[in-house]
Amino acid sequence: RLLHRVMRPDDANVAGNVHGGTVLKMIEEAGTIISTRHCNSQAGEPCVAVLARVERTDFLSPMCIGEVANVSAEITYTSKHSVEVQVTVLSENILTGAKRVTNKATLWYVPLSLKNVNKVVEVPAMQYTHKEQEDEGRKRYEEQKLDRLETKQRNGDVIVPVIGPAEPHTVGYSQSSLIHLVGPSDCTLLGFVHGGVTMKLMDEVAGIVAARHCKTNIVTASVDAINFHEKIKKGSVITISGRMTFTSNKSMEIEVFVDADPFVDEPQERYRAVSAFFTYVSLSKEGKPLPVPQLLVESEEEKRRFEEGKGRYLQTKAKRQAQLQQAAQP
Amino acid sequence: RLLHRVMRPDDANVAGNVHGGTVLKMIEEAGTIISTRHCNSQAGEPCVAVLARVERTDFLSPMCIGEVANVSAEITYTSKHSVEVQVTVLSENILTGAKRVTNKATLWYVPLSLKNVNKVVEVPAMQYTHKEQEDEGRKRYEEQKLDRLETKQRNGDVIVPVIGPAEPHTVGYSQSSLIHLVGPSDCTLLGFVHGGVTMKLMDEVAGIVAARHCKTNIVTASVDAINFHEKIKKGSVITISGRMTFTSNKSMEIEVFVDADPFVDEPQERYRAVSAFFTYVSLSKEGKPLPVPQLLVESEEEKRRFEEGKGRYLQTKAKRQAQLQQAAQP
Amino acid sequence: RLLHRVMRPDDANVAGNVHGGTVLKMIEEAGTIISTRHCNSQAGEPCVAVLARVERTDFLSPMCIGEVANVSAEITYTSKHSVEVQVTVLSENILTGAKRVTNKATLWYVPLSLKNVNKVVEVPAMQYTHKEQEDEGRKRYEEQKLDRLETKQRNGDVIVPVIGPAEPHTVGYSQSSLIHLVGPSDCTLLGFVHGGVTMKLMDEVAGIVAARHCKTNIVTASVDAINFHEKIKKGSVITISGRMTFTSNKSMEIEVFVDADPFVDEPQERYRAVSAFFTYVSLSKEGKPLPVPQLLVESEEEKRRFEEGKGRYLQTKAKRQAQLQQAAQP
Repeated sequence: RLLHRVMRPDDANVAGNVHGGTVLKMIEEAGTIISTRHCNSQAGEPCVAVLARVERTDFLSPMCIGEVANVSAEITYTSKHSVEVQVTVLSENILTGAKRVTNKATLWYVPLSLKNVNKVVEVPAMQYTHKEQEDEGRKRYEEQKLDRLETKQRNGDVIVPVIGPAEPHTVGYSQSSLIHLVGPSDCTLLGFVHGGVTMKLMDEVAGIVAARHCKTNIVTASVDAINFHEKIKKGSVITISGRMTFTSNKSMEIEVFVDADPFVDEPQERYRAVSAFFTYVSLSKEGKPLPVPQLLVESEEEKRRFEEGKGRYLQTKAKRQAQLQQAAQP
Repeated sequence: RLLHRVMRPDDANVAGNVHGGTVLKMIEEAGTIISTRHCNSQAGEPCVAVLARVERTDFLSPMCIGEVANVSAEITYTSKHSVEVQVTVLSENILTGAKRVTNKATLWYVPLSLKNVNKVVEVPAMQYTHKEQEDEGRKRYEEQKLDRLETKQRNGDVIVPVIGPAEPHTVGYSQSSLIHLVGPSDCTLLGFVHGGVTMKLMDEVAGIVAARHCKTNIVTASVDAINFHEKIKKGSVITISGRMTFTSNKSMEIEVFVDADPFVDEPQERYRAVSAFFTYVSLSKEGKPLPVPQLLVESEEEKRRFEEGKGRYLQTKAKRQAQLQQAAQP
Repeated sequence: RLLHRVMRPDDANVAGNVHGGTVLKMIEEAGTIISTRHCNSQAGEPCVAVLARVERTDFLSPMCIGEVANVSAEITYTSKHSVEVQVTVLSENILTGAKRVTNKATLWYVPLSLKNVNKVVEVPAMQYTHKEQEDEGRKRYEEQKLDRLETKQRNGDVIVPVIGPAEPHTVGYSQSSLIHLVGPSDCTLLGFVHGGVTMKLMDEVAGIVAARHCKTNIVTASVDAINFHEKIKKGSVITISGRMTFTSNKSMEIEVFVDADPFVDEPQERYRAVSAFFTYVSLSKEGKPLPVPQLLVESEEEKRRFEEGKGRYLQTKAKRQAQLQQAAQP
C-alpha cells in the first residue's frame, strides 16, 4: 500500500461523495512516486517521471467522507522511454472494516532529465515473471501509441461562448469554464503542473457542467483516456472549459479542454494542453441512478458531436458486455 | 496581535509577491473573530458576525515569501445592528526584525442569529474613550450606508463573452472568469461563504485580467469599497468574472462581478452577490512601477466605463493629495 | 497571542474533533516564528530556527469545529546553540466566550545559517528574571540531551508489511503507511520540511491505525517526545508507517516511523528521519472514553514491544499521580 488518506469534507460534494478529481489526483501522485523511483533505480541521469497518458478509468462506486482511501501502485511494463503503472484504489470503511475496490487505473509516465527538461532519459528495464506478461505489456504499449496520435487531431476545437440567456438543457446553458493560475504546489520538481492537478480541475469543470444540466447530485462515472501532449509551466494561466456532448437515459458525456497561456516570461501563444471526455451519472438521495434530462442539440456541430458521443457510449457498452460474457464462461 | 502567519510560496505569485487576495482573506478572518466575539460578549442570542462591507483598501507595499504577516484588529464603532472593525497588517522580516505597515482596512459586520439565519441580532454597545470617537464613527456609519445604496444599482450589469480572437489590449482580450464550487472549508458556521474567500477569488480573477493585459509581474494596489449584498450558500457554484475598465499611465482598474447559482436544493435563480473595482500596477524585476499599455476601448459602453474609471482615478488622486497637504500642515 | 485560527471541517474528523496533528502543526508554526525572531534579534548571521525536538505533549481536551484556537509562545531557555519555547493552546468558543487550555508543549529549536545550512549559529542569551529560572532551564536542557541519545537507538527498526489477510486486533491488521512527496509549501526558507508538517502526517497515520483497531471515533491523547534527527529536503519522498504497540483498558499506543528517500538529486540512501509514540483514546458519541479491544500480540517481537509500551504507560501514570499529590499538598 502506497498511500492512505482519510477523505475530508473538502474532498467531497455537498452530498458527501468524494469528487472523482480527488481520486484521480491521488492516483497520479502514487503513479509519479513509483515511476520516478523506478527510473532512478539504476546509476544514470537523475530524472522525474512525468505523466504522459491515463487509460480510460471507471469509477466503480463513489467514496464517502470519513472513509480511508488505500492507493497502491505497481509497475507493469517498461519500454525504452516510458513506464506503465497500474494503480488500485480501495475504499475502506474503518468503522466496519469493509473494503471495496473503487478504481483501477493505468498510467504512462515518461522520465525527463532533471538537468535538461527537454531530454527523455532511458528507463531501466523491469523484470517480468512470465514471457506473456511482457508480450501483453508491449501490446498495450503499441495500442496507446496509436491512440495518442488520433486524439491529437481533436485538439483544434474550441468552446465558443454563448451570448445572452440560453434555454435549459441546451449545450450553451450548462457549458462552463474556469481559469487557474499555476502555483508552486501544483508543480513537480521540474516546475511543470502535475497531471493529477490538471485532472482534478478538469473533473471540477465537468462536474459543474453536469450539475447545471440536471440540477441534482452528480458523480463521476468514468473518464476517457487522457493524453498529456504538452507540459504546462509554473506561472501559466490555464483555462479549463467543458461542454456537454451527449446524454443517454442515465448518463452524460462532457468534453473538457485545457488551454494554457504561458504569459509572463515567454512570448509563446496559447496552446491546447489536454482534452478528455468525462461521463457523469445523477444520483438520488439513496444513491440510485436517476434519469437524466435529454441534451437539446441545436447546431449541426452539436448534432455531430452528439452522434459521436453516442458511438463512444455504445462501443463502451458493447465492450463491457463482452467482458461480462467472457467472465461468465467456464 | 490576532494572527501571525509565515507567507509561503503558495501565497505568492511567481515573482514572490504575496497575492492581495491572500492578505484580504487574512484581514477578513481577523475581523470575523473579533466581531463575533464582541457580538456574543453579553447574554443574548448566540450569533455569527457576517461581513457586510469592506471600505476602500490600499496595499501600501507588497509582502514577500518568508515574511511574517502580523494582523491585528480593533472594534472602532458599533451601531444597533453592525460593528465596524479596523484591521492593520504589518509585514515583519523575522531575520532583520524590520516591520512595515502593508495594509489598513475597515470592515463592517452584521451579527446573524445562529438559530435563525435571517434574523439580525442586536450588537452590544462599545465603550468609547472620547465623545469624538463615537461621533466620527457615526459619521462613517452614515456614509457607508449611503454608499451601499448607490452600488446596488451597478448590479444589473453583466460581462458579455467575446466570440473569436480579440486584439491585444482590448477589453475582450483580457476579460476572464472562473467558476468555484463552494465547499465546507469556504464557509462559516452558518453555512455561508466567508467574505474573505470571495475576495480572494475576486483578486485572483482581477490579477489574471491584469497580467493578460500587460504580460508582466503585477500586484494589487487597492480595492474599492466592496458591499456584500447577498449571502452565498454552501454547495453553490459561483462565477467570478473580471474585465478591465480603465488604465492610467501606471495603473489598471478591473471590475469584478460575483454571481451565484444555488442550484442543487433550491429553485432560486442566479443572482449577483458582490461587485468591486480592483486597481493593479505592473512591477519591474527591481520592484519599480512600469508603464501600462493603454486599454483599447471600442464600444460606446466601454468608452463610458473608461470615463467613469477615469473619474474614480482622479477623485482618489485628489483625495490623496488633500490628505498629504493636511498631514504637512503644522 | 501569536496565532488565532477558526477550526474548519477539514481540520477535524467526522465526529467534529480537531485532529491532534492540526494542533501540533499550529504549535510548531508559532514556535518557529518566535524562535527565528529571537535568534535574529542581535546583529549576526541571518538564520532560521529549525525544530530539533518536541517534549511529550498531552492533549487535555479535544477542540471542535467552529472554535478558535489561540496559540501563544514564549522563550523559556537558551543554550549556546538551542532555544526552548513553551507554547500554550487555548480553545475559545467565541459564542459563549468560554476558554480552556487544550495543550501545553515544549519545543527545542536550533538556528541554522541561511547561507550555510550545515552551520549552527549562536543563540543570543535570554534575560532571566530569576536565577532559578535559568537553573531549571539548564536542567531541562541536560535531560533532553540525554534522551535524544537514547531514542537514536530505536531507529534501526522497520515495519514489515503483512502478507495475506490479518485477524482483527492483531498488530498486522491495523498497521498502515503513507507516502508523501515533499512540495514547496511543506518547507521552510531553507528548503527543509517544517517539523509541524511531519508531525501532522504522523498523527494522520497513527489515527488510521487506531481507528482500524477499534472502529470508533478516536482522538489523540498524547505524543511522546519526538526527536528530529535528520532534516528532510524538498523533493524527497517520505514514508510514514505506524503500528500499534500496546493497549491499556482505555488507550492505545502507536509507534510511528518516518523514512525519507532523497532520491532525485542525491545518492543518499533512505534514512530514518523521525520516530515517535502516539497515544489515542476511543470516544463515545457523548465524548466519554470507551474501552479499547486488547491488542493481540503474536510474535516474540510484538510481545516485547507490548511490554515496553506497558512500561511507558505505567511510568506516565506514576508520574501523573506524583504530580497530582504534589499539587494537593499545602
